[in-house]
Amino acid sequence: MDTLIYNATIITMDEEETVIDRGYIRFNEASIVTIAEGEPTQEEKEGTVQRNANGKWLMPGLVNTHGHPGMTLLRGISDDQPLQEWLEQSIWPAEQQFNERTLHVARDVSMIEMIASGTTAFVDMYHLGLPAFANRIKEVGLRATLMRSVIGLCSKEEQDEKLAESLSFATAFHGEANGRITTMLAPHAPYTCPPDYIDRIVEAARDADLPVHMHLAETRKEIHDFMDQHGMHPLELLEERELLAGTKWLFAHCVHMYEQHFELIQQRGSMISHNPMSNMKLGSGIAPVASMLKHGIPVSIGTDSVASNNHLDLFEEMRFALLLQRGVNEQADLVKTYEGLKMATINGSKATYVNQVGALRPGNEADFIMLSPHQAHFLPEQRVLSHLVFSAKGTDVTDVFVQGKPLYRDKEFVTMDKEKIMAEARSISK
Amino acid sequence: MDTLIYNATIITMDEEETVIDRGYIRFNEASIVTIAEGEPTQEEKEGTVQRNANGKWLMPGLVNTHGHPGMTLLRGISDDQPLQEWLEQSIWPAEQQFNERTLHVARDVSMIEMIASGTTAFVDMYHLGLPAFANRIKEVGLRATLMRSVIGLCSKEEQDEKLAESLSFATAFHGEANGRITTMLAPHAPYTCPPDYIDRIVEAARDADLPVHMHLAETRKEIHDFMDQHGMHPLELLEERELLAGTKWLFAHCVHMYEQHFELIQQRGSMISHNPMSNMKLGSGIAPVASMLKHGIPVSIGTDSVASNNHLDLFEEMRFALLLQRGVNEQADLVKTYEGLKMATINGSKATYVNQVGALRPGNEADFIMLSPHQAHFLPEQRVLSHLVFSAKGTDVTDVFVQGKPLYRDKEFVTMDKEKIMAEARSISK
Repeated sequence: MDTLIYNATIITMDEEETVIDRGYIRFNEASIVTIAEGEPTQEEKEGTVQRNANGKWLMPGLVNTHGHPGMTLLRGISDDQPLQEWLEQSIWPAEQQFNERTLHVARDVSMIEMIASGTTAFVDMYHLGLPAFANRIKEVGLRATLMRSVIGLCSKEEQDEKLAESLSFATAFHGEANGRITTMLAPHAPYTCPPDYIDRIVEAARDADLPVHMHLAETRKEIHDFMDQHGMHPLELLEERELLAGTKWLFAHCVHMYEQHFELIQQRGSMISHNPMSNMKLGSGIAPVASMLKHGIPVSIGTDSVASNNHLDLFEEMRFALLLQRGVNEQADLVKTYEGLKMATINGSKATYVNQVGALRPGNEADFIMLSPHQAHFLPEQRVLSHLVFSAKGTDVTDVFVQGKPLYRDKEFVTMDKEKIMAEARSISK
Repeated sequence: MDTLIYNATIITMDEEETVIDRGYIRFNEASIVTIAEGEPTQEEKEGTVQRNANGKWLMPGLVNTHGHPGMTLLRGISDDQPLQEWLEQSIWPAEQQFNERTLHVARDVSMIEMIASGTTAFVDMYHLGLPAFANRIKEVGLRATLMRSVIGLCSKEEQDEKLAESLSFATAFHGEANGRITTMLAPHAPYTCPPDYIDRIVEAARDADLPVHMHLAETRKEIHDFMDQHGMHPLELLEERELLAGTKWLFAHCVHMYEQHFELIQQRGSMISHNPMSNMKLGSGIAPVASMLKHGIPVSIGTDSVASNNHLDLFEEMRFALLLQRGVNEQADLVKTYEGLKMATINGSKATYVNQVGALRPGNEADFIMLSPHQAHFLPEQRVLSHLVFSAKGTDVTDVFVQGKPLYRDKEFVTMDKEKIMAEARSISK
């Protein structure tokens, strides 16, 4: 049976940038059937479960295009360290302690956070326990892009083993959970994967028609070291080895990159996940997002893990992304309000190569969220787009649907037991 | 009768940076009586109303050191304009429409927002309806620093009239509401007040022992124009005219200032309100806060008005302030986690020249807030300082006390009628 939600302000994020002041959406588990202004007719109501949105704001679910949910219980482990120290002294030793249960709980906590703040789809780049996570996501109902990421600082045999594991996970789970799970291959970074290994991974991805996700140009030191060793920027090396064209890339960070790189990215059709808060917190720098946008790259947004963020609220991340560009370039109209919403929705679906979400239109899948306008920080109420970008918090989200199924209804979880999960997380962290 | 809140994690923000894992606070409307670890003894419980905090986090109330609550209903009026255009085309024409009722409602909305996000004290720089606002604040119970700000681009007679009005408001209301209201004088900015007028205002402030609040060096254009006209930076002009030493200054913004200016600020004991989100949003730039801190200036935080922010959540503002410095300087340990909490609390009380708040210790007044630790984004729970800075949201605040009186209790307003105020705001903005 279809569901009909009426009396909503609908921000469609479609090509025409349609915002419906008062309207309705009819959908089912396969797709969105109708979106229209005004009251539904008697005919449109027939055969539906109806729900009055009471003026809530309804928009596509947010897409988090770079993260590591397995690290969620490392939140706050070390807040004043730069990337390399932070990895070597804090993160990697802590990860040695992880087991199946800690990973499960960490990921459940991250899904609680994501659902409660309006994220319907996320990218997880990690090296541990992927099949278990995929199966858990099936139960929870979120949309996710998963991959077994690899570090290549090891023997050729180990490299091959890791790649085989990645590929077997990716091919087994791509399209699972009714298409909600997609997969990628993921060399961790150019400074942790020798070029030949990246070659082999990209070749495997092309053969299997899988996208490739990689950290790129996160810190200045990494670029200096790479140039010392290879005589060029890692993106230029990828181009020289003909790894860009014909590969569905999603690069995370892209902080230390310049005009000519964004030209190349645009020409080759690669995607970017911008991670402003993590880049700031670790002292990595400020990614030149205004340049990326100028080159027509559909920049998306990722939080990175909460060990370097330290939260998963994409509304705050979107706001931060916009404000940062205006501040650093001293230009208030450089990245416009609406661009923020695109980064967090439609551009996220482009970045993950999942086309049927990110905008609300008939035929697309029904991944959407609702926010309560009844907040002092949303007054005056009529300036909806402004408030979504410059005032909204994850906590304003009241409802989350993925593929037409509710995961969060009037702030209650439908598929997860929040109290139980938080109690488990507490018992582990003691 | 005293109140005793026990079973709380107490972040005192005292000189020793004391954090009490499980403890209690005894206080009344005059001051804090005891703060200690563990369980209160039978004797300490005697003659008190007792309340179990159930593990909540208890910390000093946040201090917002620069804002314009009267502008609250201009939120979202124009989000993609630089400061000068924004003022001339959007803000000033809109302000022409203000009347007593719109101002009253705008300010009530801002107080609802501030209380609900943990702000206990704020600075309001505005030119309209100050006495009415002061009387309203008395009823609501917040702490505030108020002033009738002046623009001097007018005849000498008008200048004198405005100054007289400012001074008469300031002297009449300083110390009102049991000391919760303090006042300042406020020349709007060096580009809107000729130097002679600033001279006269500062002289009046010295005579009346009042601090002076002013926008300073907000945009690059403003500094260029000022230097064309006066041959020096506005701060240098203030020094040349001997207006810095012996005056209790609070400067807002301070974006386009350099090492030598911070040396001067430090020597003269002036205070700074850093307004990161507003500076970013209007494309004004990034204030060199790391330099300010290196010079030992106790930088405080202000939101500016919601027309350029667009919210009043000081937790987000504090986080933004820290991350920004790390990002722009590419150094993760440049502004440490704890510094963020200082900026939003104790430094705020220094910036407003109100000494009995900002830190929790016996003898200080009981201005404090509580946050619920029961949030997925606060796991693992034991890393309290990290979470307060890098994960907390205004919406995590559950309780607000000023001078020992509750303004917000388990998320319910005690002294304000939120529904009524929001309904009025809605009817006005239609």
